[in-house]
Amino acid sequence: MSLIKTIDKLKNEIRNIQNGKILNIGFVPTMGYLHEGHLSLIKKAREDNDLVVVSIFVNPTQFGKNEDLDSYPKDIDRDFKLAVDSGADIVFNPEVEEIYTKNSCTFVNVEGDLTKKLCGLSRPTHFKGVTTIVAKLFNIVRPKNAYFGEKDAQQVAIIEKMVEDLNFDINIISCPLVREDDGLALSSRNVYLSKEEREQALILSESLFKAKELYLNGEKDAKKLKEFIENKINSKNLARIDYVEILDAKTLEEIDVIKTKTIIALAVKFGKTRLIDNIYLEV
Amino acid sequence: MSLIKTIDKLKNEIRNIQNGKILNIGFVPTMGYLHEGHLSLIKKAREDNDLVVVSIFVNPTQFGKNEDLDSYPKDIDRDFKLAVDSGADIVFNPEVEEIYTKNSCTFVNVEGDLTKKLCGLSRPTHFKGVTTIVAKLFNIVRPKNAYFGEKDAQQVAIIEKMVEDLNFDINIISCPLVREDDGLALSSRNVYLSKEEREQALILSESLFKAKELYLNGEKDAKKLKEFIENKINSKNLARIDYVEILDAKTLEEIDVIKTKTIIALAVKFGKTRLIDNIYLEV
Repeated sequence: MSLIKTIDKLKNEIRNIQNGKILNIGFVPTMGYLHEGHLSLIKKAREDNDLVVVSIFVNPTQFGKNEDLDSYPKDIDRDFKLAVDSGADIVFNPEVEEIYTKNSCTFVNVEGDLTKKLCGLSRPTHFKGVTTIVAKLFNIVRPKNAYFGEKDAQQVAIIEKMVEDLNFDINIISCPLVREDDGLALSSRNVYLSKEEREQALILSESLFKAKELYLNGEKDAKKLKEFIENKINSKNLARIDYVEILDAKTLEEIDVIKTKTIIALAVKFGKTRLIDNIYLEV
Repeated sequence: MSLIKTIDKLKNEIRNIQNGKILNIGFVPTMGYLHEGHLSLIKKAREDNDLVVVSIFVNPTQFGKNEDLDSYPKDIDRDFKLAVDSGADIVFNPEVEEIYTKNSCTFVNVEGDLTKKLCGLSRPTHFKGVTTIVAKLFNIVRPKNAYFGEKDAQQVAIIEKMVEDLNFDINIISCPLVREDDGLALSSRNVYLSKEEREQALILSESLFKAKELYLNGEKDAKKLKEFIENKINSKNLARIDYVEILDAKTLEEIDVIKTKTIIALAVKFGKTRLIDNIYLEV
């Protein structure tokens, strides 16, 4: 149960534990301020692997200029305890300078459509930062299995693409989104919400649940479901929709009629806080 | 001693040889049509490692539109024998479709100056292709040590930068350029040269050797040495200079006066054939 700050110490620790044998390493990369969503990933990694590494690193290259890098919530003591209690063997919590050296200029980029739509529209450099840091962490930790939450559905699809295209020998395991009892999708950013914003934000999960109900009752028209959700969200005066999209769950391509497993994904701003949520429709 | 065509078979073969233990793997990535330069890398890899993997893959993403991808020389039977005789345990010779799947769109790119100057000027997408294929092959082979020839001095510097920036746990080992008895730097592309071009191309090594002699006799002015070389090369009617540069050997930054270890690097076209050569000046 170690909290490790440097790459060299992390590699040494892993090498010592491996002791010349190849162990299955499970890896959970996070930006910290852990919630039950993260913990579900750590617990799953504990079940599947010999050694569980959790990283806590607020990655600057995935934040845009006017985003919340400086205010992103942090609590490493609490995170360390939660991670260990959930099954982590090693918590890796490097400083920015440890990860990005002064003249660092190499990037990993998924250049296809996948990174340009949805969150890529309002956050054009976001996914390039994500794939770069994940590739770096994969090279440092060298896991057999890596765990990501389906709340970030586009991120999961992009990382799966990167792993396939760059031949990383790593299984990407995605785990279901976790919600508060009242339906709000767990996010480290939920702490930014005022009381009123928090109340109004419930419309996101509510509208997704109702849309799923409509789908289960026979509505297969993506445009109608999308309009239904948009209308519900727009009924809240603090909500500003970034996008509501209904997509093939695998390719993330837009669809007209629901015929294959589908994801409804949305991003909505409440004040300065941008929330995302999604729901899967099985066929 | 296997010739392997698919990634899965290569991984299985390596896994079987490793048998649960971590072995030191030495890796020599090549585009084939092996010459003594390549063989010196394989021999060095044999000395240093438990297992030696040589790849032979003419990588399309590092060729520009009007370059020699289609005519690049190939002789896999001869290459296999030469590689094995020099110490290779495994020769990996995949088809293009095995390495780049249909929708492949992820690239690794060193974005700094390093890729934009010298060969990057006339081959603007070249190094992006190089770093992408090398990253892919690193992920497939997972070597401890990887071997590159100093003939491609810029490539070595760029790969070292990629390895550092992306935290690959791999030692990059560069080996000296190998020449024909008459001084011509070995290159798979030398077969393109006509008899007359081959004769005139000797001016490259000749001018580098003479420049080194001038330096050893006290000439430290980079501009003068550069002009000396350019004049000598321009005395040959078939030679068209792409660049002659005198650079800090480590940073590849231009210098005025030679004070630190320096490289003189040049690229010159003879007919359709573009040759590169270089020489180091020690201080």
